Amino acid sequence: MVEWANSTLNPPERILMGPGPSLIPPRVYRAMSAPVLGYMDPLFHGIMDDVKSLLRRAFNTSNDMCFPISGTGSAGMETAVCNSLEPGDHAIVLINGFYGDRIAEMARRVGAEVTTVEAPWGTAFDPSVVKNALNNHRQTKVVAMVHGETSTGVVQPMDEIGKMVKEHDALLILDTVTSLTGYPLDLDGWGVDFCYSGTQKCLNAPPGLSPISISPRGIDAISQRRSPVVNWYLDVSLIMNYWDQGRAYHHTPPISMIYALREALAIAEEEGLPSRFERHARNASALQAGLEALGLELFVKDPAHRLPSLTTALVPEGVNDAQLRSALLNEYNIEIGGGQGPMAGKLWRVGLMGYSSHPRNLLALLAALHDLLNRQGFRADGPGAVAVATRVLTGG
Amino acid sequence: MVEWANSTLNPPERILMGPGPSLIPPRVYRAMSAPVLGYMDPLFHGIMDDVKSLLRRAFNTSNDMCFPISGTGSAGMETAVCNSLEPGDHAIVLINGFYGDRIAEMARRVGAEVTTVEAPWGTAFDPSVVKNALNNHRQTKVVAMVHGETSTGVVQPMDEIGKMVKEHDALLILDTVTSLTGYPLDLDGWGVDFCYSGTQKCLNAPPGLSPISISPRGIDAISQRRSPVVNWYLDVSLIMNYWDQGRAYHHTPPISMIYALREALAIAEEEGLPSRFERHARNASALQAGLEALGLELFVKDPAHRLPSLTTALVPEGVNDAQLRSALLNEYNIEIGGGQGPMAGKLWRVGLMGYSSHPRNLLALLAALHDLLNRQGFRADGPGAVAVATRVLTGG
Repeated sequence: MVEWANSTLNPPERILMGPGPSLIPPRVYRAMSAPVLGYMDPLFHGIMDDVKSLLRRAFNTSNDMCFPISGTGSAGMETAVCNSLEPGDHAIVLINGFYGDRIAEMARRVGAEVTTVEAPWGTAFDPSVVKNALNNHRQTKVVAMVHGETSTGVVQPMDEIGKMVKEHDALLILDTVTSLTGYPLDLDGWGVDFCYSGTQKCLNAPPGLSPISISPRGIDAISQRRSPVVNWYLDVSLIMNYWDQGRAYHHTPPISMIYALREALAIAEEEGLPSRFERHARNASALQAGLEALGLELFVKDPAHRLPSLTTALVPEGVNDAQLRSALLNEYNIEIGGGQGPMAGKLWRVGLMGYSSHPRNLLALLAALHDLLNRQGFRADGPGAVAVATRVLTGG
Repeated sequence: MVEWANSTLNPPERILMGPGPSLIPPRVYRAMSAPVLGYMDPLFHGIMDDVKSLLRRAFNTSNDMCFPISGTGSAGMETAVCNSLEPGDHAIVLINGFYGDRIAEMARRVGAEVTTVEAPWGTAFDPSVVKNALNNHRQTKVVAMVHGETSTGVVQPMDEIGKMVKEHDALLILDTVTSLTGYPLDLDGWGVDFCYSGTQKCLNAPPGLSPISISPRGIDAISQRRSPVVNWYLDVSLIMNYWDQGRAYHHTPPISMIYALREALAIAEEEGLPSRFERHARNASALQAGLEALGLELFVKDPAHRLPSLTTALVPEGVNDAQLRSALLNEYNIEIGGGQGPMAGKLWRVGLMGYSSHPRNLLALLAALHDLLNRQGFRADGPGAVAVATRVLTGG
């Protein structure tokens, strides 16, 4: 048993460049520590309204129903799945990474009949594949897919797919966990009905909430369900009554996390989404150029499908993944992510998300990788990589 | 649209004496704002282990599986229900308030066949009622009930009921949302298999996590399920693999909330549970005596069934509940709760939970109530009430 009187919580300040959580700005920590209000306090209801309207702007949508689910990103995924699907409904789930697979698993658990459509990890979907799947399953109620795959760093172009789903009168679920405020979204244009995200990625609030946006069509679909949502905690028809003017109690929301989210959204609003997207793109280009100059191979071959908030590179032959990432954490205080599922041990995932997307972080990482790769016998050109990245950053 | 540059988040410091959230000690706010670590960081895994062993002591159990669910108290309730029950299973749910009713609703949604046993709000269950229900339903898999009803302020004696449930070889779910660290628990002695709580009550951390404790029998029952848990996010068989030494990723946990919980548990550990229970009992007795001296009628008639962390009193005839609580909040900065369900407008719920359970808070409330009741024409003896309460506090 630890002696508690002598054991204080003093975690070091890591440079968080993994797939999330990302670095948290001091402003967000301060907001999170503001005095907790009761969930029926009119002053808290004002804060809820702020969050709703800021979320609407961050999601770039006219959807009235934008609010945070009281759980982390996967709770948002589950909310979308269990509110839109009922036992026996047909769903098409697009899988080109770890998270598409998770959606399919959740859909099966609620009793949906699931057709999966797969594309290789590291690639985006050709819209024709989706078209075929829809033509083969005309009774499809829901198409679910990931916008920015956190396991691969692929961003999926949505224009054509969105149109097809609408033509087939299906509902569209889109995972924007790693793209929200890091890459342009057009929920209304794409016809997205259920869109969920996380707070610990490009928004830079701690994990604990999953912002969600539901279209009027999505709300209609919920109201026409034949059976209650099996998951009471995530039942949107009940939660809505608290996030709406009725303020009917459903569950006690995570007050401090909502403070943090509000501040994080205010920061994104102040920067402006266009500048924010440009900053993510510029820093990601610099990182990618630097990693290639180090001699690493990027995992996503098509530059148009690279998600700026998450860059992936293959672990070079002969380099020990666990050993390198452990040294990076212990000696340089830098966290990057490893591969998931079939890519475990083979992939590095580097997040440049929101506040974390800054030259100082990517340059420090390139210099550290130079050292650690060389120590493992991989001849990496560190100074060259830093110079290349700096040239991209300065537009040279 | 609000001008964000000019809109800072500055909630006032309310005296939170409602049914939760309770007041948060400065230490907990500070811990919550410590730098976020990644969920695969070995240093974070050490903090997770601290939380598990501190939770084991707070729950007063030998159960190895004590960890927080990544959602608020109702998520813990749903976790207990959806992991223990499958479609077609029989459950007996004891209802003597709002939260028992919620358990029954969740159990029905997962497809269980539910028998409810009711007792009037404000009273505890006679064990014989439970015995009859069990005798009438010998195939019962789960008995679910609330230890401290947040809607009524009743604490349920558990010794006899626990024994009966064990004799019938059923699983026992117990809601300790409002009793954990505020009233003695004996999970192992009572034979509780799934016990869940909340962080925002007697623990004084912000809402956002639901500590849960599962017995070896409960874990066995999960491993013998015929079907996967319909709710992926709350599937204990998966979450356990992350909270155990395997550290297999399931979802990103709410890191900052876990920091807060660790600190809150350390505070309880430092005070010691026996002193903590005694403090809750003493302050509750003082409040109850004071409220009666004001001329109010306590809702729970049997003193043995009064939950020290939550005292309930009837709104006197002719007094406007909403108006009084609104003035209490706006003029005195004090929050108390109103009634739920059938008791809406008729009941006041006063929390003295953990850090909030302090003479300064209850004395301030008695003085404020004196003023506000008299303003509404109810002749309350304020100085008398404060004197009575002070006598109880000082053992006079």
